[in-house]
Amino acid sequence: MKDERPIRNFRMELSFDGTAYHGWQRQPNGITVQEVVEAKLSRLFNTERVKIQGSSRTDSGVHAQGMAVSFEAPESPYIPDWKIKKALNRLLPPDIRIRSVDYAAPDFNARFSAKGKAYIYVVNTGDLNPFTSRWSHYQPEFMQLDAVREAMKSLEGTHDFSAFTIELVPEKDHVRTMYRLDVKTFGPLVCLCFVGNGFLYKMVRSMTGALLEVGRGRMQPQRVAEMLASKDRSMAKDTAPACGLFLMKVFYEEDEWRSFDFDTPPFFML
Amino acid sequence: MKDERPIRNFRMELSFDGTAYHGWQRQPNGITVQEVVEAKLSRLFNTERVKIQGSSRTDSGVHAQGMAVSFEAPESPYIPDWKIKKALNRLLPPDIRIRSVDYAAPDFNARFSAKGKAYIYVVNTGDLNPFTSRWSHYQPEFMQLDAVREAMKSLEGTHDFSAFTIELVPEKDHVRTMYRLDVKTFGPLVCLCFVGNGFLYKMVRSMTGALLEVGRGRMQPQRVAEMLASKDRSMAKDTAPACGLFLMKVFYEEDEWRSFDFDTPPFFML
Repeated sequence: MKDERPIRNFRMELSFDGTAYHGWQRQPNGITVQEVVEAKLSRLFNTERVKIQGSSRTDSGVHAQGMAVSFEAPESPYIPDWKIKKALNRLLPPDIRIRSVDYAAPDFNARFSAKGKAYIYVVNTGDLNPFTSRWSHYQPEFMQLDAVREAMKSLEGTHDFSAFTIELVPEKDHVRTMYRLDVKTFGPLVCLCFVGNGFLYKMVRSMTGALLEVGRGRMQPQRVAEMLASKDRSMAKDTAPACGLFLMKVFYEEDEWRSFDFDTPPFFML
Repeated sequence: MKDERPIRNFRMELSFDGTAYHGWQRQPNGITVQEVVEAKLSRLFNTERVKIQGSSRTDSGVHAQGMAVSFEAPESPYIPDWKIKKALNRLLPPDIRIRSVDYAAPDFNARFSAKGKAYIYVVNTGDLNPFTSRWSHYQPEFMQLDAVREAMKSLEGTHDFSAFTIELVPEKDHVRTMYRLDVKTFGPLVCLCFVGNGFLYKMVRSMTGALLEVGRGRMQPQRVAEMLASKDRSMAKDTAPACGLFLMKVFYEEDEWRSFDFDTPPFFML
């Protein structure tokens, strides 16, 4: 029997601790966040497969505080729409949490409608700690924050970021605009913040790799500007480990990124 | 052959995420923090069994930021004393971390030399969150902090705390002194802080149970004073879940508790 229920478009924001997952996107080699959430949504809406469009394909081990997704679904035979968030959170494991569910315009697509994104990268420069080790990169060294900020300045603005990706596709555009880069500390945690209109594959971890070399005093800040100008990936060899990276927020309004709060760390875990 | 190596007394501070453990103290029913640390210490010092004296016997699921312990050990055949912390952290799982190792006076005993302790209890009053759910109690309700503070006032000072323990031993003394109780918030996290000269079995979780009832408006603040005065356990029925509790610090100097920083939450995870 054909499913005659009218289809609606939804947008949803979710948080996940990426430690246990092989990244966001469905893949044959391991369990992913997308497949877990799709399975629970399909059950909730009693359809064969609800297909989720994620705003970003986060890598294995990367975390999200505000991953944005969109999906189409009919009415659930079990619950009214206003209970979707609660019902879904009951079905999902504790390391994946739905933050909000809303109706979206029919043409809204979490990936293609995105106007900007915010990431942070967390480095623990103090002692290893059982409460932060799942979501920070451990590097117990003094960080020269002023040098990091100086290097960040050269990455702000509109540039070809070919030097900071590992997937160069000749026909594709590697130009992105970084609205704001900054570094904040919370006790021994050093948080590198990145806000831009879009990011190439592994771009945040690649920029972070270079910035951490600057912070440790192994690289001069101006070297980052040279790497950027070279557009040559072989210059930027260090990709920071996945466990320190958080996708914080996806923006769908042009200037929405301006209201993003960087100033009360560790906001990334609340 | 008899072990002829001279024996020294050590003190050590450690943090652990208690989620995976059946509490601190060795027991037949499950793996405990004490037995894991003792096994690694015995290996490091190449002795049959290093016996650790813990300052507190934390319950199953309770966390520690600054558990204090003492133990006697000969010289290690493998490493010099100044490398004990690093070597031990290599051997231990990531949810147990050694913060410091020092020589102690021969008569120092982590349990009997203690002059005071600080605990905090963390309640998440916001959305369930993958990054805080391992170490907070989830209670998504508005908390009347002024009412909690008022109730806390009646617990400060020297009292018989029989109403707030579940293990009444007739010959034993149930009088303890609470130096300072306070409540702080960090975003949606509400942190109840307790500093005293000592605590009875399940006393913090029992006081927290009552204080949370006050915070939710289900109990008047003065009711806590009445419960305390009654010295009757049957009055205090609510014991807050283990997952929200942290042993923060054990004090070995008389006025050391005064310097304990309550004012920069979430200090408990750094």
